[in-house]
Amino acid sequence: MEGVDHLAHERKTAQFDVEAMKVVWAGSKHELDLSDRMARLVASDPVFRKDNRTMLDRKELFKNTLKKAAHAWKRMHELRLTEEEAGKMRFFIDEPAYVDLHWGMFVPAIKGQGTEEQQKKWLPLAYKMQIIGCYAQTELGHGSNVQGLETTATFDPNTDEFIIHSPTLTSSKWWPGGLGKVSTHAVVYARLITDGKDYGIHGFIVQLRSLDDHSPLPGITVGDIGDKFGSGAYNSMDNGVLRFDHVRIPRDQLLMRLSQVTREGKYVQSDVPRQLLYGTMVFVRQTIVADASRALSRASCIATRYSAVRRQFGAQDGGPETAVLDYKTQQNRLFPLIASAYAFRFVGEWLKSLYTDVTQRLQANDFSTLAEAHACTAGLKSLTTSVTADGIEECRKLCGGHGYLSSSGLPELFAVYIPACTYEGDNVVLLLQVARFLMKTVSQLTTGKKPVGTTAYMGNIEHLMQCRCAVKTADDWLNPYAIQEAFEARAVRMAVNCAQNVSKAPSQEEGFFSLSADLVEAAVAHCQLIVVTKFIEKVQRGNVGDGVKEQLQVLCNIYALNLLHKHLGDFLVTGTITPKQGALVSEQLRSLYSKLRPNAVALVDAFNYTDHYLGSVLGRYDGNVYPALYEQAWKDPLNESDVPDGYAEYLRPVLKQQVRLARL
Amino acid sequence: MEGVDHLAHERKTAQFDVEAMKVVWAGSKHELDLSDRMARLVASDPVFRKDNRTMLDRKELFKNTLKKAAHAWKRMHELRLTEEEAGKMRFFIDEPAYVDLHWGMFVPAIKGQGTEEQQKKWLPLAYKMQIIGCYAQTELGHGSNVQGLETTATFDPNTDEFIIHSPTLTSSKWWPGGLGKVSTHAVVYARLITDGKDYGIHGFIVQLRSLDDHSPLPGITVGDIGDKFGSGAYNSMDNGVLRFDHVRIPRDQLLMRLSQVTREGKYVQSDVPRQLLYGTMVFVRQTIVADASRALSRASCIATRYSAVRRQFGAQDGGPETAVLDYKTQQNRLFPLIASAYAFRFVGEWLKSLYTDVTQRLQANDFSTLAEAHACTAGLKSLTTSVTADGIEECRKLCGGHGYLSSSGLPELFAVYIPACTYEGDNVVLLLQVARFLMKTVSQLTTGKKPVGTTAYMGNIEHLMQCRCAVKTADDWLNPYAIQEAFEARAVRMAVNCAQNVSKAPSQEEGFFSLSADLVEAAVAHCQLIVVTKFIEKVQRGNVGDGVKEQLQVLCNIYALNLLHKHLGDFLVTGTITPKQGALVSEQLRSLYSKLRPNAVALVDAFNYTDHYLGSVLGRYDGNVYPALYEQAWKDPLNESDVPDGYAEYLRPVLKQQVRLARL
Repeated sequence: MEGVDHLAHERKTAQFDVEAMKVVWAGSKHELDLSDRMARLVASDPVFRKDNRTMLDRKELFKNTLKKAAHAWKRMHELRLTEEEAGKMRFFIDEPAYVDLHWGMFVPAIKGQGTEEQQKKWLPLAYKMQIIGCYAQTELGHGSNVQGLETTATFDPNTDEFIIHSPTLTSSKWWPGGLGKVSTHAVVYARLITDGKDYGIHGFIVQLRSLDDHSPLPGITVGDIGDKFGSGAYNSMDNGVLRFDHVRIPRDQLLMRLSQVTREGKYVQSDVPRQLLYGTMVFVRQTIVADASRALSRASCIATRYSAVRRQFGAQDGGPETAVLDYKTQQNRLFPLIASAYAFRFVGEWLKSLYTDVTQRLQANDFSTLAEAHACTAGLKSLTTSVTADGIEECRKLCGGHGYLSSSGLPELFAVYIPACTYEGDNVVLLLQVARFLMKTVSQLTTGKKPVGTTAYMGNIEHLMQCRCAVKTADDWLNPYAIQEAFEARAVRMAVNCAQNVSKAPSQEEGFFSLSADLVEAAVAHCQLIVVTKFIEKVQRGNVGDGVKEQLQVLCNIYALNLLHKHLGDFLVTGTITPKQGALVSEQLRSLYSKLRPNAVALVDAFNYTDHYLGSVLGRYDGNVYPALYEQAWKDPLNESDVPDGYAEYLRPVLKQQVRLARL
Repeated sequence: MEGVDHLAHERKTAQFDVEAMKVVWAGSKHELDLSDRMARLVASDPVFRKDNRTMLDRKELFKNTLKKAAHAWKRMHELRLTEEEAGKMRFFIDEPAYVDLHWGMFVPAIKGQGTEEQQKKWLPLAYKMQIIGCYAQTELGHGSNVQGLETTATFDPNTDEFIIHSPTLTSSKWWPGGLGKVSTHAVVYARLITDGKDYGIHGFIVQLRSLDDHSPLPGITVGDIGDKFGSGAYNSMDNGVLRFDHVRIPRDQLLMRLSQVTREGKYVQSDVPRQLLYGTMVFVRQTIVADASRALSRASCIATRYSAVRRQFGAQDGGPETAVLDYKTQQNRLFPLIASAYAFRFVGEWLKSLYTDVTQRLQANDFSTLAEAHACTAGLKSLTTSVTADGIEECRKLCGGHGYLSSSGLPELFAVYIPACTYEGDNVVLLLQVARFLMKTVSQLTTGKKPVGTTAYMGNIEHLMQCRCAVKTADDWLNPYAIQEAFEARAVRMAVNCAQNVSKAPSQEEGFFSLSADLVEAAVAHCQLIVVTKFIEKVQRGNVGDGVKEQLQVLCNIYALNLLHKHLGDFLVTGTITPKQGALVSEQLRSLYSKLRPNAVALVDAFNYTDHYLGSVLGRYDGNVYPALYEQAWKDPLNESDVPDGYAEYLRPVLKQQVRLARL
C-alpha cells in the first residue's frame, strides 16, 4: 500500500490554487518559507519524535522533554538560528516545556517590569540560559484574583533585604510551569510590606535552586504538583508548588520599574504609567488567539482527511460505502470548524497589528484606545479558546471510534489545549470584563463620547436599534453587508437590553451581579461580531491567487451563517431577523457546504502541516490510515508478550477455579 | 485541619430531607441500602484503591486491573454475594475491565442468540469463568455499519466446520474490550457463507486462546490496539485486534437460535421472530442512560462541593472572598447540570419499566410498540450521553485550574466516559434513526394510524400546530402544562417542517440525505420532550419526604427552562412562543437558581457517593480540599528526588554553557 495516495482524488477536485492559499494562511511568503523550513528541520530529527509520547511514564516523559529542549538549544547554536527561527523551531517541537515559560514569561517580565539596570544584570544571564526562570504568580488557594495572593515580601531595613514568606498552606505557589523541577529562578509575586504597611502585589526575582548542584536553596520547598489531564500532553511540564520559609533576597531584586523601596524602607512610585503593563496583556492574549487557530486547524485537518478516507453505510449492492465526508451531518459539524480556524487565523493576524498600534500609542502616552484594546483581546481570547477546545473534541468525535486512540493525536491535542480556557484569565471572567466595558460604552453613548475601535459600530446605535434585515432569498444571505448589519444589530440590542435591565437593579453592582449570565451572552455577541467583521474585511482585501478569494468568501459565509443559526434565539428575540429569514440561513448553509465539499481536503492542506507536526495516524497526508493504525497498535507495551503480565497470578486462578486459594 | 467540615454550613441551609431524597435518587430503600453496602465494601478494601491509577504505566495499570478483578471474584465467593450485589460491587470498583464484556456482552449474546442446547453447554462455563469471553463485532474498517463487516465464516461440508477468516487488513476485528489479552473465547460476527452464498452477518462462538497456557491458538493473531484517551481511564481495558487465518470451528458454534446450517450446508431460518434481538438493544441502551446519570451526577457533585469551598474575588476590605457557587455565571452553568443528572436518572428509571413492558409484549408476540421503543431508547441514549460528556468537561472547567489535575478525578471521568457517545451506535447516526421514525409517524398521521408511547403527543397535532403559549409572567413558566405544551408544540412543528421539506426533494432518500442536519435537530427536540415529560410525571407522583417534592419541582423547571433558553431559536422560529415569553424564561431561571442555591450541596449529597467512588480531591465530602491537594502532589514520581532525573545530561550542560560539547 505504500506510496498510494488515497486522497489524490480529493486534491484533484479543488477549485483554487493551494500554494497561494498557503501564503494567505501563513500571512506572507516569508512566514510560509520560515515555517516550512523549521517544520521540516524538526520532523527530520529523530530526537524530536512524538509518536511514543503517550506511552512513556511520567519520569521518562519528563526526561525526554529535557533532552529535546537541550538538543534544540544545541541545534539553534549549531545552525545559528535567528530569534524568529528559534521561536518557530520551539513551536514545531510541539511539547510543553520549561523553555516556554523562560522565554515567554520570565524574560518578558524582567523586560517589562525591571529597571534598565536590572535588565542589564539579569537579561544576559537569561538569554544565555545561565539561569532558567519561571513566573510564580498563582497560589494554591488563589487563581485569577491576583489581589487575593497571600505570599508576603516584608522589607527588613536592618539587612536591606526582603523576606519572602508563605504564611499559609493556601499561599503556596501552585501551577507555575517550569517551577517544579527546572527553574533556578522565578519572578515571584508577593504582597510588598514595608514599615508595617501592605502595598499590594509586586514582582520579585528570587533564586530557588543552587547553580552548583541544582538543589533547592534553604527555606525553599519546591516540587511538581502531580499528574495532569491526559497522557503525554502537559505532563511534560513541571508545573510546580513552592513554599517560602522566610527566604531573604536583596532589596534590588524587587522589580522596580514601577515602584521602589528605598534603603530606609520608604515605598516610592515611579512616574512610569501603569498602563504599560496592559500592553503585555494585549501581547500575550494575541499569541493565545494565534495558538487557537493553529490548534483548531490541526484538529480539523485530521478530521477532514480521515473523513475523506473513511467510508460508512450507503453501499448499494456490495459497492463501496459512502465517504463520511459526503454526509451532511458530518459537513454540518466539520465545515464550520474549518471556517472557524480560518476566521481565528485572520482575527489573530489583525490582533497583531492592534498590538503594534497600542504599543506605539503607549510610547506616545496616548491611552485613549487601551481600554477598548484590552476588552477586545480579552473577549477574543475567551471566544477563540472556548470554540477551539470544544472544536478539537468535536473533531475527535467526527473520527468515530478511532479518534479515541492516542495514535489519532486528538486526545493529546485536546488535553494539551484546554488549559488555554483557564490560564491568562478564565474565559467567563474575561467575558464579564468585556461586558463591563460594553455597559460603560453604552452608558457613554448619550454623553456624546464616541466609541472607538471594535466598538465603533455602537456609534450607529439609532440605526441599529430599528433597522430591519432586508434578506428575502437564501442568496441574499451571501451579502456581507446584510451579515454584518445583522451581527451589529444583534450585538447592540443585546448590550442595550442588558444595560436597561442592569439599570433597574437597586445598584449597578447588584444588577451586574444578578444579570451576569445575560451579560456574558451579550459579550459573546460582541466578540463574534469582531471575528465576522475582520473575516469580511480580509476577504475584501483583494485577489491573491486563483480561486482563493472565492474560497475565503465561502468560508466567511459559513462562519457567519453557522453562528447565526446556532444563536438564532438571539437574533429572533432582539427582532434583528424574522423567523423566515432564519429559515433561509439553513437553506443557504446547505448550499455553502456543497460548495466547500470538493475543496475541503485542499483547504486543510493549505495549513501546510507536516505529518510530524500533525502527529496523527488518521490525519496522514497520504490517507493510508489503516495499515498505519494496525502497525502502531503492536508497539504498545502490552503487546510485548502474547500472554500478559499477571496471567499466572490473576487470570489462571480464575480460569482454573482456584481463586479461593489464591493469594491476591 | 482534620475533622473540620468545611461544608457543614452548606448542609445546614438545605430545605429538604436529604435521606428521603437519597431514596428517591436510588429508586427504592432496597436499592439505596444495597448501593450503600457495596460502595462501602469496595471503599474499605485497599486492593480497590484508585488514587494511584493515573500514575501507573500501561502494563502496571493493566496488571492491577487483573488483580482487582480476581480479588473481586474471590470476595464475591467469600461473601456469597447475590448476582445483584456482585453487579453493584463491580460497578463501585469503577474500573473498565474484561469482566464488563464477559458479563455484559458475551453471556447475554449466548443467552439471546444461542439455542437451549448451546446455552446449556456454554453458560455454565461462562458463569464459573472457566472460559472468559468478549464480543467481537467491529472491524478496523467498519464501525457502526454491521452490514459492512468483512470477516467470513465459510461452511466446509467435508469436515462439518466453519472456516473463520479475515480476508483483508480492514477486516481485522478492532476495539472489542477484553479481546486483546484476556478472553479465551469470543462471539465473533462474520458473514455466513455456505454453498457459495453469502447469508450476511451471524454470530459464532470461537475459542481464541489455549485453556492450558493462554497462548493464542493456531491461525489466531490477537493483541491490544494500543494507548487510548487519557491516563488511567480505558487503558485498564485490553481493547483488542484479532485476525483469523482460516480458523476452523465446529458447525454447532454458530449461534443458532435464529438460523442454522444443516449438516449438508443448507441455511435454515428458525421461526423465532427477529424482533427479539431488538429487546437486547433496548436493554443495553437503558443501562447506558442509567450510566449517564451516574457519570453526570458524579461530575456535578465534585464541581458543586468544590464551588462551595472555593473562593474568588469580591472581598471587601480584606474580608473573605465570595464562594464561587454564589456567582450567577457559575450557577447558570452548574445548576442545569445537577438538574440534568436528576432528569436522566428519572428517565432511566422509566426506561427500565419500558424494557419490562417490551419484553412482556415480545413474549406475547406483540411487536406493536417495538419500533417506538427502539427509536425512543436510541434517542435517549444519544441525548443523555452527549449532554453528559459535555457536562463532565463543563464541571471540570467550573473547578478552575485545579480541575485539570488528575487528582480532581474529572480528567479521568471524562476520558472514561466519552466512548459512550460512540459505542452502541454513534450519537448522530442514532438521532437520524429517530428522525426517520418521526418522519414515518408524521406521514402516518393522515392515515389515521395512532402514534403510540412517546410519540402519542403527535396525535394531538392539530392543536399543537396552532396553539399559542399562554405565559404572561415569569411565574407562568412554573406551570408544568405550559412547559410541556411548549416542548410538544416545538417538537411537532419541527418534525412537520422537516417532513414538508423532505417531501419537496426529488426522492425521499435525497430529501432525507440533504436535510439531515435539520432532521437531527428535530430528533433532539423530540428526545428533550421525552425527558421533560418523564421528569414532570415523576414530580407529580406524590410526596416522598420533607421538602423533596419542592426540590424536584425546582430541578425539573430548571431542566426544562434552561433547555428552552438554550434552544430559544427553535421555539421562536416555529412560533411556539414569543420573544417576550422567551425573555421571561431568563427571568424565571434567575429566580430558580436562587431557590436552588441553599440546597445545592445537599442535592449532590443525595447521590450518596463515597469519597472512594467520587475519586476526587476537590469533591471530598468534608470539603477539606487544599491540604489534600498539597499532600497528593508529593506522591508524583517526579518528586522522588529534589533534582530531577536528566539534570546531569540535559540541564547542567545548558546552564553551564556546555551544550555544544554535550552528547545529547
